[in-house]
Amino acid sequence: MTVHALEAARRLAPRFAARAAEHDRDGSFPVEDFRDLREAGLFGLMVPRALGGLGASFAEYAAVATELARGNGATALVFNMHASVTGALGAVTEELAEALGVPDEALVARDRLLTAAAQGSWYAVAMSERGAGARLSQLSTVYEATDGGWHLKGSKTFCSGAGHADGYLVAARSAADQSVVSQFLVPAGDGLTVEPTWDALGMRATSSHDMHLDVTVPADRLLGGVEGLALVVAQLMPHWLVASYAAVYVGVAQAAIDAAAEHLNARNLAGLPAVRARLGRADAATAAARLVVAEAARRVDEEPGEAETNRWVWRAKLLAGTTAADVAASVLEAAGTSATRRGHPLERLYRDARCGSLHPATSDVCADWLGIAALGGDPDRDGSAPRW
Amino acid sequence: MTVHALEAARRLAPRFAARAAEHDRDGSFPVEDFRDLREAGLFGLMVPRALGGLGASFAEYAAVATELARGNGATALVFNMHASVTGALGAVTEELAEALGVPDEALVARDRLLTAAAQGSWYAVAMSERGAGARLSQLSTVYEATDGGWHLKGSKTFCSGAGHADGYLVAARSAADQSVVSQFLVPAGDGLTVEPTWDALGMRATSSHDMHLDVTVPADRLLGGVEGLALVVAQLMPHWLVASYAAVYVGVAQAAIDAAAEHLNARNLAGLPAVRARLGRADAATAAARLVVAEAARRVDEEPGEAETNRWVWRAKLLAGTTAADVAASVLEAAGTSATRRGHPLERLYRDARCGSLHPATSDVCADWLGIAALGGDPDRDGSAPRW
Amino acid sequence: MTVHALEAARRLAPRFAARAAEHDRDGSFPVEDFRDLREAGLFGLMVPRALGGLGASFAEYAAVATELARGNGATALVFNMHASVTGALGAVTEELAEALGVPDEALVARDRLLTAAAQGSWYAVAMSERGAGARLSQLSTVYEATDGGWHLKGSKTFCSGAGHADGYLVAARSAADQSVVSQFLVPAGDGLTVEPTWDALGMRATSSHDMHLDVTVPADRLLGGVEGLALVVAQLMPHWLVASYAAVYVGVAQAAIDAAAEHLNARNLAGLPAVRARLGRADAATAAARLVVAEAARRVDEEPGEAETNRWVWRAKLLAGTTAADVAASVLEAAGTSATRRGHPLERLYRDARCGSLHPATSDVCADWLGIAALGGDPDRDGSAPRW
Amino acid sequence: MTVHALEAARRLAPRFAARAAEHDRDGSFPVEDFRDLREAGLFGLMVPRALGGLGASFAEYAAVATELARGNGATALVFNMHASVTGALGAVTEELAEALGVPDEALVARDRLLTAAAQGSWYAVAMSERGAGARLSQLSTVYEATDGGWHLKGSKTFCSGAGHADGYLVAARSAADQSVVSQFLVPAGDGLTVEPTWDALGMRATSSHDMHLDVTVPADRLLGGVEGLALVVAQLMPHWLVASYAAVYVGVAQAAIDAAAEHLNARNLAGLPAVRARLGRADAATAAARLVVAEAARRVDEEPGEAETNRWVWRAKLLAGTTAADVAASVLEAAGTSATRRGHPLERLYRDARCGSLHPATSDVCADWLGIAALGGDPDRDGSAPRW
Repeated sequence: MTVHALEAARRLAPRFAARAAEHDRDGSFPVEDFRDLREAGLFGLMVPRALGGLGASFAEYAAVATELARGNGATALVFNMHASVTGALGAVTEELAEALGVPDEALVARDRLLTAAAQGSWYAVAMSERGAGARLSQLSTVYEATDGGWHLKGSKTFCSGAGHADGYLVAARSAADQSVVSQFLVPAGDGLTVEPTWDALGMRATSSHDMHLDVTVPADRLLGGVEGLALVVAQLMPHWLVASYAAVYVGVAQAAIDAAAEHLNARNLAGLPAVRARLGRADAATAAARLVVAEAARRVDEEPGEAETNRWVWRAKLLAGTTAADVAASVLEAAGTSATRRGHPLERLYRDARCGSLHPATSDVCADWLGIAALGGDPDRDGSAPRW
Repeated sequence: MTVHALEAARRLAPRFAARAAEHDRDGSFPVEDFRDLREAGLFGLMVPRALGGLGASFAEYAAVATELARGNGATALVFNMHASVTGALGAVTEELAEALGVPDEALVARDRLLTAAAQGSWYAVAMSERGAGARLSQLSTVYEATDGGWHLKGSKTFCSGAGHADGYLVAARSAADQSVVSQFLVPAGDGLTVEPTWDALGMRATSSHDMHLDVTVPADRLLGGVEGLALVVAQLMPHWLVASYAAVYVGVAQAAIDAAAEHLNARNLAGLPAVRARLGRADAATAAARLVVAEAARRVDEEPGEAETNRWVWRAKLLAGTTAADVAASVLEAAGTSATRRGHPLERLYRDARCGSLHPATSDVCADWLGIAALGGDPDRDGSAPRW
Repeated sequence: MTVHALEAARRLAPRFAARAAEHDRDGSFPVEDFRDLREAGLFGLMVPRALGGLGASFAEYAAVATELARGNGATALVFNMHASVTGALGAVTEELAEALGVPDEALVARDRLLTAAAQGSWYAVAMSERGAGARLSQLSTVYEATDGGWHLKGSKTFCSGAGHADGYLVAARSAADQSVVSQFLVPAGDGLTVEPTWDALGMRATSSHDMHLDVTVPADRLLGGVEGLALVVAQLMPHWLVASYAAVYVGVAQAAIDAAAEHLNARNLAGLPAVRARLGRADAATAAARLVVAEAARRVDEEPGEAETNRWVWRAKLLAGTTAADVAASVLEAAGTSATRRGHPLERLYRDARCGSLHPATSDVCADWLGIAALGGDPDRDGSAPRW
Repeated sequence: MTVHALEAARRLAPRFAARAAEHDRDGSFPVEDFRDLREAGLFGLMVPRALGGLGASFAEYAAVATELARGNGATALVFNMHASVTGALGAVTEELAEALGVPDEALVARDRLLTAAAQGSWYAVAMSERGAGARLSQLSTVYEATDGGWHLKGSKTFCSGAGHADGYLVAARSAADQSVVSQFLVPAGDGLTVEPTWDALGMRATSSHDMHLDVTVPADRLLGGVEGLALVVAQLMPHWLVASYAAVYVGVAQAAIDAAAEHLNARNLAGLPAVRARLGRADAATAAARLVVAEAARRVDEEPGEAETNRWVWRAKLLAGTTAADVAASVLEAAGTSATRRGHPLERLYRDARCGSLHPATSDVCADWLGIAALGGDPDRDGSAPRW
């Protein structure tokens, strides 16, 4: 499949790039980019073939995400959320479902969501909250059972694609038992109010607005069909929480190098030794980050959940974030003041690139996690702060 | 004097800071900041006391500029241009004037300009051109003698304060003899057209627009009264060309640290070891850059033109630019995603701070210059590219 | 094969490590390490199976070299020279031989050398000269035809393993025609004098002494059987000239992390946040460098000579050298003063690790080469200095 | 005074440099350097003029130490210990003595020690212990009152100048009351046994051996005449504990630049852009570190004990240590493999320079301390570990 999907991503990237400056300037959502993604069938990227999707592996996802990000990192970041939702749903095997006590009707509901994705629906994630950040254990959004469904109430932040998606993965805790955290797939529509708070340094086109929920959903919108699975799933699939951003930032770094090279060649500055040294070191660092992301992804596919796999996942997050920021800062310096005018790709990429280290798990948290592992400890247990 | 001027700068900085977000967002000129500067008498900072000014030294200028930049780097950057013009004019001693063949009437004209500054006029600089950059030897704006004055024609870029200043220092080459470069103080008014091209990554409130000139000025607006002095003056006063920005970027770095500390304390994050390490290293680096700028400025005052003085000038430019960018990037990472929302001081400071290394002489050019000097060469002669 | 060779390397590494401190202290050659390598059959690593060797690919070599370097980087560096000689000889296909005009008897002679290696002989390289460095175009060692053989005269430097190898690959230029550079495999024995000049910061056990040649060798010791092939071969196999060191320095970096972790755990310092951050970043950087070396090696095997393959080769050299030095410096700082006592592995590894960036092509040359490539130029042609 | 002392230091530095390679190689103590220091009267540098000394300020000490270190960092480091002892003794004012309850006879004894220093005696420090490091609160060396004196018993490590000094400042805790830590000036002679353990990466000529004490000293060798003053004095004079090393490492960094420039010019490599960039950035960083040390020293003299003074002291320690290591690593890379031969100044300076960040307070501890201060906390109280 990837050949097809990867080719599609490469074909779409220049179209995204052509629209990127406008969406960045206005902070508007790249509606056309998402129409292109739908038409290319990429909403089904992570949907099993049996349900009409492309059945991509995590490695295939990573390669596609990097290519999309070379066009527009913001678009790739929103797409990453959809891929996370469909990828995690698609990865629940029958064995796992049985082990978790997932009832059959929940699998049917799950398949319905995935089939819809293959047919052109896309999902966003409403996880973070002000105060709690991305830590599931700190959420204040609550849900309770109603007649034939669930009622959810609370407020989310950093909800990329808010107001544009067809559904939202919402994490909430039980009003009846604070220790139970569950996830719901809430369809777009009444009961969801977008508060347009997103107006940020970088990745401006993600529309990562606040969203307020006061909504009732049918019973089958509880993912997994039993309450309390959210933390379990988070721990089973750290790659979607930690490293799926990484592929995006490799694309951003590569886009910065490409834009700098074009800018410098157009101005006949490619011969300056300082310029060449900056481009050369940026090239090597970006190539390395790309390999690390690919290696992490390969291991996620082949040896999911292994300790060594998880180390690669955290390495990928750390290196992609730091590399993108360093590379964009250095090649912008190589390109000079004329590349800082708004509308110049490097001006945007410099801002976009800074965001990778800040997404959870931040670079400092990643360094701590990896350090504990290198010292022989258990990083999921010994860390100085709750990870989720 | 400085006590007074420095106190004024400290008093004004919070007012500038309160307005900074709006001007950054809109790219509008901080008109009120300049009204404050006028009322505080700071337009006369570099004007000799005999002409009604504060008679500040370069070191005093540097201290004032850093304080102003803690409020708004963009305001300080435009103020720096005015200080450069008045400082350079004020620094022309009688001995130098005689050596350069400056006629008496030119000194009278000079005094008139300085007196006006002390009384509230301020001047911008229209030096750079697309293609030529800041190199005087490459200009395409030309002038020719007219009946009782000079006619100037051409286009300038990166003219900070364009459309707001009372006069503009314009460098142009003689239509009669391409090797002769002269400087004029062109009054605001007809013949000057501002093209609002400035819409940049950082320092957005400087209004560094393009300006088109097709204007005739009186004879006494030729600075120095004789043609061809521009390059001589540039070489005599490298500090205004190279290092006057440096003080501004020290202020920007300090503002970033202060904003990060406030942000982190407000969120009870000051106890995180990674946060403390970032703040501690940022503090030391900024303190060092501040000292280097002060040392360069002290030597400019006490031993102007000495080889060792010039080395400190270039060191100041290099360190202020690189330190501001590194510090802002690191403390933004410490502060986290919530500090990247537009309107947050760190979001703006991160963008402003990136600009210091890009102003001429860029950090890479500074490193080359300093390397030649450290190796015992003559950096003004041996460099790989024309410096001016 | 690699399974066997890689296992052997892993088995030998702790034995090398146990001897490393002594050889480092005395600058003595690790004779026992080489006995171990012979007994494990690793001198035949790059020898085709048909000639009794293990027929390893370049990727397999890289994996073995990294493991050996985890034991002792100096041993791995000398082994690398033998692998380069046998690897390059073994890589001359019949097609290439025909294209280069290599006569049949030269292939017979070549096979004899390789068979000897498989049976336990090992070869060193005597290429660099004082003044010329590693640039073949600048050599002053000359050869001329004698009755039934060749006479070589000159002096070499940085000849790793000098006085211990069974033969030496010697590059020399023709006395008759200065533009002709050829390579000879000179057997150990009379006519070769080792001058013990090697007493260096790091990699002290390589015995990279000077060697003086005034020696006559049989006709069949001219590699390839025709004169003038040296530069052609250098250009065909940049991986052996540029990147074979890289695998060694990845092993050195990994050894530094392992030694630091052991040291810190023994002192109960693994809980310090600053220590964990250093170890975590070192782990990620080293993992990345390892992947880049593996990727370069894979491409050398699968797509030798391709432009993209060569880029990976130069990236590998750059990243392995810079990563080893940075990692060793950082983890030594984490470990503290007690790890700087001579005899402590980190004390030696810190010195060894500094050497990687200095081997040709140096890190600065690599950055320039990669920058030209990233800017769309031809790095083998456009560089500011002759590469070889 | 300093003019004289500084001139003497500049005069001696080349003599130290000429001997440095030998002492580094052998790990031998630079006996002749100390004879030179004695003859130049520099043992009295910190001794008040009234007692026959030069009465230098801390700033004057720092300038002298930097110049000495340009000759040999190891010599300067041992001299620093003598300067610390005499400087701290000389800094005890009558007011402070009264406040601490120091009896008159203790002041007489103090003056006797200082007078001896002015006449050519020099003192080393025996503070650190294996396990305790430099933290006074963790010492295991004990003392008890004897008939007419004190008996000390225990073992010290990192005692620079062990076996060569005329006396040793020894910190010990009371056998009677574990919470009481006192300091003694133990004369060289019986009861002190040097165990030659010092054989380290860098600063090899300091003879920082272990020393075992089982010795009785006269009553007046208790510094201050009353028990329990050690911690008080440590807190009063953080500059001697934290920053007196800093001046030494600025000298080491400068020596590395000078050696690299000489090496590169001798080989006609000064024109390489990458070399110039490395030298230029090294020059600026070293100049900045030198200013920070000077500023810290100036404030120690003018506003001792102020919070802002202490911040400069910690900044100086952090920046001198990191700058020396970074500069030496970078300029060695610029100079290339030929500068890594033992006996080459850069080979030694690279090793010496790595040690600065490791002396207590380490760079990581400094960053933490400064971060707490920048965040508005009390770094002497809020740190994650006991500082002393």
